[in-house]
Amino acid sequence: MTVTAYKRAGLIGVGLIGSSVALGLKKRGLVETWVGMDSDPQAIEEALRIGSIQEMTTDLRELVREVDWLLIAVPVRSVIALAQKIIPLISNPHYFMMDVGSTKTTIVETMDRLFVEHGRPNCFIGSHPIAGKEKTGPLAADPDLFQGKTIYLTPSAVTDAALVAKVDVLWRALGGEVRQIDSKTHDDILSVSSHLPHMIAFALMDAVKREYEARQINHSLGGGLRDMTRVVSSSPQMWADICLENKTPILKQIDVFRESLDELYALLKRGEEEPLKQFFSDKKQFRDKLG
Amino acid sequence: MTVTAYKRAGLIGVGLIGSSVALGLKKRGLVETWVGMDSDPQAIEEALRIGSIQEMTTDLRELVREVDWLLIAVPVRSVIALAQKIIPLISNPHYFMMDVGSTKTTIVETMDRLFVEHGRPNCFIGSHPIAGKEKTGPLAADPDLFQGKTIYLTPSAVTDAALVAKVDVLWRALGGEVRQIDSKTHDDILSVSSHLPHMIAFALMDAVKREYEARQINHSLGGGLRDMTRVVSSSPQMWADICLENKTPILKQIDVFRESLDELYALLKRGEEEPLKQFFSDKKQFRDKLG
Repeated sequence: MTVTAYKRAGLIGVGLIGSSVALGLKKRGLVETWVGMDSDPQAIEEALRIGSIQEMTTDLRELVREVDWLLIAVPVRSVIALAQKIIPLISNPHYFMMDVGSTKTTIVETMDRLFVEHGRPNCFIGSHPIAGKEKTGPLAADPDLFQGKTIYLTPSAVTDAALVAKVDVLWRALGGEVRQIDSKTHDDILSVSSHLPHMIAFALMDAVKREYEARQINHSLGGGLRDMTRVVSSSPQMWADICLENKTPILKQIDVFRESLDELYALLKRGEEEPLKQFFSDKKQFRDKLG
Repeated sequence: MTVTAYKRAGLIGVGLIGSSVALGLKKRGLVETWVGMDSDPQAIEEALRIGSIQEMTTDLRELVREVDWLLIAVPVRSVIALAQKIIPLISNPHYFMMDVGSTKTTIVETMDRLFVEHGRPNCFIGSHPIAGKEKTGPLAADPDLFQGKTIYLTPSAVTDAALVAKVDVLWRALGGEVRQIDSKTHDDILSVSSHLPHMIAFALMDAVKREYEARQINHSLGGGLRDMTRVVSSSPQMWADICLENKTPILKQIDVFRESLDELYALLKRGEEEPLKQFFSDKKQFRDKLG
């Protein structure tokens, strides 16, 4: 397996995920120079300081032309807006661009359409690393963030196999375990494994906040509650975007969750020990097995 | 402040919390010999092996008579049953017993009644360390588990101040931050800060389990979901007991949570970016502040 090293790559969005990929590929010698662009000047400054980018620009045209490939690491609903500006600027036949957004169907379908509209060969590939932190921004970046983590690649029917292979190699170099999956299945799975839990965490934090304020509790959170609401510290913009992009599956998952909560509520209300214990140990068994 | 060291103390229930207290007090020279008792012979064997107890017995009468004080570290609904047998056996006027259960009102009220019924001076004090792990059993014990953790003491109106001081010293020696609180307030606070989050985690795991099984997803859990369901691995018996002991406040908290979830569901359904972002960032702010 030959691993191509790139002289120059572009990073749009120098936050946690973007900067972690950039640091990781730089550390492993796969990208020599990262050119960064971000709407937040402070983030650019931090990214230059920690070395996730070596150069910066505010000119999209210049960025696109001066790099071998582009990593778009912005909230999902900004990916499309950027792509519309980027596609007409691409001339290099070996060029490619990849995103890292948490929802994939709209992005992949829109990209397919945009490349056809512009009469250019489709050089986009969607990816989604299942890795994150409660902290945001370049200062939280970690070149080993993807070690042992699942990375979804969501090529469409028209994605070139050679492009899939190219990015597969990059993610594996970062320690990721790559899975190819179609974008619709991806969004369905994520609505269960990620979007639902996040919605529940936000709703739980809302309930706890109301009760803490009403009862004037100002103790720090217990360990369980702290763990359960860790994800609430993620970027509000990112989660607003995910909700709007994957709204229907998420609503459906909340309905499923409500059934589970209703069942537990009924068991509690009835107040019989055995069925409650059974409900809990059934869940414990599933959790212990999945690990 | 004089710290009394005890020659012999008794531990009923040699699991995670009991064994952690025992190891911690032994390590700090505050108990010379722990005598352990547990319905699970394997747990006793493990506790002897890790040194959280030095002796064992299966005879409650013998245990009560041969130690200076008793730590009862069993699921909350077993505490009362044990106390009924223990109280008539106490003769030493300096004797005391303490529990570590997650609900306090029923235990404290019943103890007050039991001592009166038996015509003995009340030597019980309720405590609840806000510390835990997803693992159970003596092998998970840690002498420093309580370092920096909140420890609730719930003396009743008849609890001797000298007894409060005695156990206060023990918990502080373990690194705990002791707060005195009445048992009713304790149970109310805990229904928000601990019991509700646990119920939500169990319900979430139920929903995810059903969806994973229906869709034949067998991937490991993502980081967010793993954090959010860590507590599901706790003891089912312990949680059944807590639910039955603190049923009304927990049901009330689930109702509060449902309102929060309904609000988020409505925002999602409406699909407007700003109100969603506002909901998320309001929660993020609260979480970041509480830490």
